[in-house]
Amino acid sequence: MPEEGLLSQFKRLVVGSPIPSSHAHHERLSRTTGLAVLSSDALSSVAYATEEVLRVLVLAGLSALSFSLPIALVIATILAIVVFSYRQTIHAYPGGGGAYTVARDNLGENYSLIAAAALLIDYVLTVSVSIAAGVAALTSAIPALHTHTVVIAVAFVAILMLGNLRGIKESGQIFSVPTYFFIVSVVALVGYGFWNVVTGHAVPLPAPVHGLGAVQPLTIFLLLTAFSNGCTAMTGVEAVSNGVPAFRPPEAKHAAQTMLMMAVLSITMFLGITWLARSYGVVPVDSETVISQLARAVFGGRGLPYYLVQGATMLILVLAANTAYADFPRLASILARDGFLPRQFMNQGDRLAFSNGILGLSAFASLLLMVFGGDTHALIPLYMIGVFVSFTFSQAGMVLRWRSLGGPRWMAHAAVNAIGALVTGIVLLVVAATKAHEGAWIIIVLIPVHVLFFKLTQRHYTDVAAQLTLRGTVPGTVSHVNRVIVPVSGVHRAVVRAVEYARSLSPDVRALYVNIDAAATEQMKREWTIWGQGVPLVILESPYRSIMDPLLQYVSELDAQAPHDYVTIVLPEFVPARWWHHLFHNQRALLIKGAFLFRPNAIVTSVPFHLNR
Amino acid sequence: MPEEGLLSQFKRLVVGSPIPSSHAHHERLSRTTGLAVLSSDALSSVAYATEEVLRVLVLAGLSALSFSLPIALVIATILAIVVFSYRQTIHAYPGGGGAYTVARDNLGENYSLIAAAALLIDYVLTVSVSIAAGVAALTSAIPALHTHTVVIAVAFVAILMLGNLRGIKESGQIFSVPTYFFIVSVVALVGYGFWNVVTGHAVPLPAPVHGLGAVQPLTIFLLLTAFSNGCTAMTGVEAVSNGVPAFRPPEAKHAAQTMLMMAVLSITMFLGITWLARSYGVVPVDSETVISQLARAVFGGRGLPYYLVQGATMLILVLAANTAYADFPRLASILARDGFLPRQFMNQGDRLAFSNGILGLSAFASLLLMVFGGDTHALIPLYMIGVFVSFTFSQAGMVLRWRSLGGPRWMAHAAVNAIGALVTGIVLLVVAATKAHEGAWIIIVLIPVHVLFFKLTQRHYTDVAAQLTLRGTVPGTVSHVNRVIVPVSGVHRAVVRAVEYARSLSPDVRALYVNIDAAATEQMKREWTIWGQGVPLVILESPYRSIMDPLLQYVSELDAQAPHDYVTIVLPEFVPARWWHHLFHNQRALLIKGAFLFRPNAIVTSVPFHLNR
Repeated sequence: MPEEGLLSQFKRLVVGSPIPSSHAHHERLSRTTGLAVLSSDALSSVAYATEEVLRVLVLAGLSALSFSLPIALVIATILAIVVFSYRQTIHAYPGGGGAYTVARDNLGENYSLIAAAALLIDYVLTVSVSIAAGVAALTSAIPALHTHTVVIAVAFVAILMLGNLRGIKESGQIFSVPTYFFIVSVVALVGYGFWNVVTGHAVPLPAPVHGLGAVQPLTIFLLLTAFSNGCTAMTGVEAVSNGVPAFRPPEAKHAAQTMLMMAVLSITMFLGITWLARSYGVVPVDSETVISQLARAVFGGRGLPYYLVQGATMLILVLAANTAYADFPRLASILARDGFLPRQFMNQGDRLAFSNGILGLSAFASLLLMVFGGDTHALIPLYMIGVFVSFTFSQAGMVLRWRSLGGPRWMAHAAVNAIGALVTGIVLLVVAATKAHEGAWIIIVLIPVHVLFFKLTQRHYTDVAAQLTLRGTVPGTVSHVNRVIVPVSGVHRAVVRAVEYARSLSPDVRALYVNIDAAATEQMKREWTIWGQGVPLVILESPYRSIMDPLLQYVSELDAQAPHDYVTIVLPEFVPARWWHHLFHNQRALLIKGAFLFRPNAIVTSVPFHLNR
Repeated sequence: MPEEGLLSQFKRLVVGSPIPSSHAHHERLSRTTGLAVLSSDALSSVAYATEEVLRVLVLAGLSALSFSLPIALVIATILAIVVFSYRQTIHAYPGGGGAYTVARDNLGENYSLIAAAALLIDYVLTVSVSIAAGVAALTSAIPALHTHTVVIAVAFVAILMLGNLRGIKESGQIFSVPTYFFIVSVVALVGYGFWNVVTGHAVPLPAPVHGLGAVQPLTIFLLLTAFSNGCTAMTGVEAVSNGVPAFRPPEAKHAAQTMLMMAVLSITMFLGITWLARSYGVVPVDSETVISQLARAVFGGRGLPYYLVQGATMLILVLAANTAYADFPRLASILARDGFLPRQFMNQGDRLAFSNGILGLSAFASLLLMVFGGDTHALIPLYMIGVFVSFTFSQAGMVLRWRSLGGPRWMAHAAVNAIGALVTGIVLLVVAATKAHEGAWIIIVLIPVHVLFFKLTQRHYTDVAAQLTLRGTVPGTVSHVNRVIVPVSGVHRAVVRAVEYARSLSPDVRALYVNIDAAATEQMKREWTIWGQGVPLVILESPYRSIMDPLLQYVSELDAQAPHDYVTIVLPEFVPARWWHHLFHNQRALLIKGAFLFRPNAIVTSVPFHLNR
């Protein structure tokens, strides 16, 4: 017989051993490891941002591709503004200033819940988009895998899910490898490409054989659409400001410096890739990513440098997806603590803590990957709304915060965040206007649905608390009488054991037997005189041959006699030796328990009888 | 608060009110109603038997179709032999002589289990084949429905399922209508067609436009395949011998006469249809049944007589499917009584009795209809093995029975059954040889799998009985001490109520609190002095922040102190006002129950606390 429960064994197998409280926060981040741990989401988005711009522009013909660089410059400027705005958040919220926290403190509950909804949805999309882009990096390098895109993407999600359920050690060293590998690869790619262009050694890619004529006119709307696509380069920027307490002291200063470093790298890589893509005449196609085409062009084919770039891109994208596995359960836990999500998300105690969040995140991300065929481009419209809702609310909240705090330079601080809020607000409107028909409407619908659920949850807990409060009641030590009944269908060891237990509960024990067949009832009466342990046997009549109805009626009568007292129903319950043996036993205990669940003073207890084969 | 449990309310809604025991056997069958109630399966098979023969013959070209009549004559002869053989079973088993019963009494357990497996599988196929053929009758009349075959078939199964769950009244009057309607329709069709042919008014159908050349040579194997297909005409013959006790006295005599009547009708209709199909040049096609073509030809198009024939055919086939809904649960119940199937199938008490069987039968029949696209022809190969296994075993059992009974004319009786067993045995071999590659192998695999399951079930119950027996133990009235613990996570009404209940169980009650946070623990201690009802509060330390581990350890220690005594764990359990409120509450009670389930002397009790909003 196992010493620990099945559930516990299973958990240990899948999730590993629990971690003592004292181990928490055992490792603080330096700036270099902080960059690796917190910036993978932001940096990795340069792997697909350029492509997303080009894919829209190419609709207006090859010549329209030259608009990519001006668009990228606008995006880089906005990114810089956002980063400066967020640096203020870092200093204002050294405990971690996510959009939900900032909005709750400064804008009030409703705005904070909109931000929370946007963030939860975005964490799901971070997983979907990053994995889709990572798989695209893989299938660009190995085109034979292209037809298996969805399967590979879902497999990646499954690996992340299992890894996070077991508890990945958030070791800076481990995270540093893919991040710096990616930075070095992209910088090398851009640098070598730049050198080639400058020295005149650049060999542009051949123009596509099928003439790519314009299918749409080059309108302002098209340019805005390309711009809003390119804004994916900004996703993940807020991660550093959420993670301030993880840095070594002085935390805020280190975090702010890390964010600056991230911004410089992000802008450099994004502009570099966009400029090179133009110089090398890269035209976006479905079967190969822009980065892959670029690496092929710059390094002169699929050699080792090419595969290193593709590998690094895939790795950092998977790592970026992984960040959502830390963010989603953490936000869900905060929301649960505040009463806006079911308490199961707040479960503390061991690693199982966040498993509900991890499972939910994986399920929704896989669903999106399957519905959208693992296509990054199809997922991007859904991604942007949430990102810019949280940007805008977070910075608008900061503006109000500066005003209420006052202080000598409050207007200067407020101005920085106000510019940030204004710019991201405008981007939000552009995204909504250009992307709503491409799927972003789903998110516009989902955000209020989430907020409604948060509110319903909160109301339920308020209701429950009101029903549970002891305020207004008087402590007392009244005693209640407990009458115990044991429904029996025959005489065997499990019944004898149940009666023994019933006798330990109360002096008032009676066995109940339902008379279906007169001969069997006589037999039962005879056997009870031997095995009944002095407990009286009550015979119930059942004209309809039902077992349950006479039992329920008898308990109702007992209850009516003394409504203040308890009636305890003791049932023998078989515990089979093997789980599939459950097939062979009636779930009568469960049925009886269900039937009595709504009687206020009836308590059902089952006495386990262990079968060992 | 509802007076009866949710389950009970739901059951009443779907299944209707229970029937008192005294209503059972309220109606005995006359010969005419007996024919209607018990022969629909046998008679309805003439609706597709001719077609199944023609569909094989046509593979050897149109000229091969002329072999249909000799084949039908052989089948009719075998049918007559089987019926004479079964008439002896009727007299020998006036209590109902199904193949399982006869084989068990005379051939032993293993053969009886093979027969039982064959029968259970066949009941599923009776539903599938009859419904498929019924839908074919419908789609022949209304060709627009042809593309929806599977949906219509599954809908028919769903209707039968719901009807049987509610409990269809097996009223002879109601059953008589479709059966006699079908007999009259087919006899009218055959009679009118015969008159036309004899008087030279018959207008043969035009030969198919696409020349149907031979795709296979006309081999003995092809003829045997056509023959084994045609043997479907024999399915359902045994139903009368199973239902002997349902007849008015003298039961056996009435049953035997009914069986004879059924055989005469079956043979007449089968030979008549087969002969007419030749005379009118009917060629089997996928989109229209042979009966439909024939009715069109005989009645000169789709007029009222045509639609009456199609309607009657569809109705009797649905009725035939319905017979399996009585047979399957009855056999499952007998097998459960003998310990070969889980006891759930034996549930007695009210109509819910047979619901497991009804649900299982519907699920498997629907699955087959979906897998085989609702095509009668594709299902037939699976059908025949089981039918002829049970025929053969049943009659072989009768031979042994006559020998062991002895008596003056035993050899004459034995000879009749021996001929029956021999003939059906040969057909079984022919079916296995010609049909194994068409899907019958599934059944050849499934029968031993079923037998294995029957044996495993029996062994499990034997094992359990050995563990439950009181033989060898001595009755006693030893008393055990009960120590009660109440794990608490705070102080509220549900906890106060749980402690009140705990105090009614034993003088030895203690509350357990797991220390995760020192401040919260101090607060808890203070509140406990007010609300603890004098019950001591034990603080458990938890270095790993786990709630469960300290609890389990504490109970282990208690148990080690006094292994003979009980430890009762009392938990407050919320009963939410609405089912979806379960979302908002931890299933901790369930987890704790699971964790303690394998401790021999630990009993978990939850005290319901009813939330009303």
